[in-house]
Amino acid sequence: MVKVITISREYGSGGRLVGSLVAQKLGVPFYDRKIIEMSAEKSGLSENFVADNEQCVKNKFFHNLAFGYMNAHGAAGQLSLSDKLFLVTSEIITDLAEQGPCVIVGRCSDYVLRERDDVMNVFIYADAEHKKERAVKYYGMDAEKAIVEIARTDKYRANHYSYYTDRTWGDRNNYHLCLDSGFLGVERAADLIVAAAK
Amino acid sequence: MVKVITISREYGSGGRLVGSLVAQKLGVPFYDRKIIEMSAEKSGLSENFVADNEQCVKNKFFHNLAFGYMNAHGAAGQLSLSDKLFLVTSEIITDLAEQGPCVIVGRCSDYVLRERDDVMNVFIYADAEHKKERAVKYYGMDAEKAIVEIARTDKYRANHYSYYTDRTWGDRNNYHLCLDSGFLGVERAADLIVAAAK
Repeated sequence: MVKVITISREYGSGGRLVGSLVAQKLGVPFYDRKIIEMSAEKSGLSENFVADNEQCVKNKFFHNLAFGYMNAHGAAGQLSLSDKLFLVTSEIITDLAEQGPCVIVGRCSDYVLRERDDVMNVFIYADAEHKKERAVKYYGMDAEKAIVEIARTDKYRANHYSYYTDRTWGDRNNYHLCLDSGFLGVERAADLIVAAAK
Repeated sequence: MVKVITISREYGSGGRLVGSLVAQKLGVPFYDRKIIEMSAEKSGLSENFVADNEQCVKNKFFHNLAFGYMNAHGAAGQLSLSDKLFLVTSEIITDLAEQGPCVIVGRCSDYVLRERDDVMNVFIYADAEHKKERAVKYYGMDAEKAIVEIARTDKYRANHYSYYTDRTWGDRNNYHLCLDSGFLGVERAADLIVAAAK
């Protein structure tokens, strides 16, 4: 029996919208950016730091720099602020899944909840043309910028996921359903997820 | 409007069964091993050659050897027997799609029909445990042999697909739906495909 649905998604695929439709159709809470507020509150870090950290492509160098810095000052033991934040967010996701049925978007939630057997993991993707169209239409982006922004955001997501999970972002083996929202449309993609979860 | 559904699948995932269920539910023809007979008839090659060729992992060396051999004898112009067979099978698949709605399993059919806009491409996969279980239960394999056979067959499929299409087998971008039949079960996977196609 599926209790929690996690949605991972390519930028511009409408995956967030798919997730919110699924939550609406199932009548369960939907967690997306709300987790940022919750993480900020729980960690004592500012919402801005949390949101910025979500947008920043991590690399070993900066990570190690932060790691060394934190150690020298003894402020956060072995962990960088980003790593602390990941742990706080993971605790929040674990608690949300414990509390009851819900839909969670992103934040490595498929990995965080990997020990549960009542979680269905979904990946939403689309072809470049559909993603560009969506970025221009709904995020008001200039078409040329959209291509760069899609690549940059997905690179960040892949990097972030691989850094924390040691898995490959978008690899079908991490998900139970992978749906092309460009081909299916967001409404039908949501319907298929609901049908799969029932 | 979806007219043709192609099913690509990992060995042991039950993808063939999913495809036949979809065809049954939609009331359309199902083409799987029947294409071997059709290819044998059309090419003048024996059914055994066609079936064996389907099981043989190609590599550059053997390909080039065959290529050189065929040239020296002038029997098949620039093409090896395997390449000729691929072209014959592709023509058959193209004709089947032209004739009317159907479900086609394997044989790079997603790639062969890439120019059509009425084709839905599906990839069926499952976790190792489910695939092994299916191979033991339905194909009567010994559990240890099943692991080797699954790896061998999927390696062949990936190799064959990449050789003829220059794409990566199992890469979500080649498919509109990727479904984990181990998690969903074959019946539900078939229902989702039917719902997606309608």
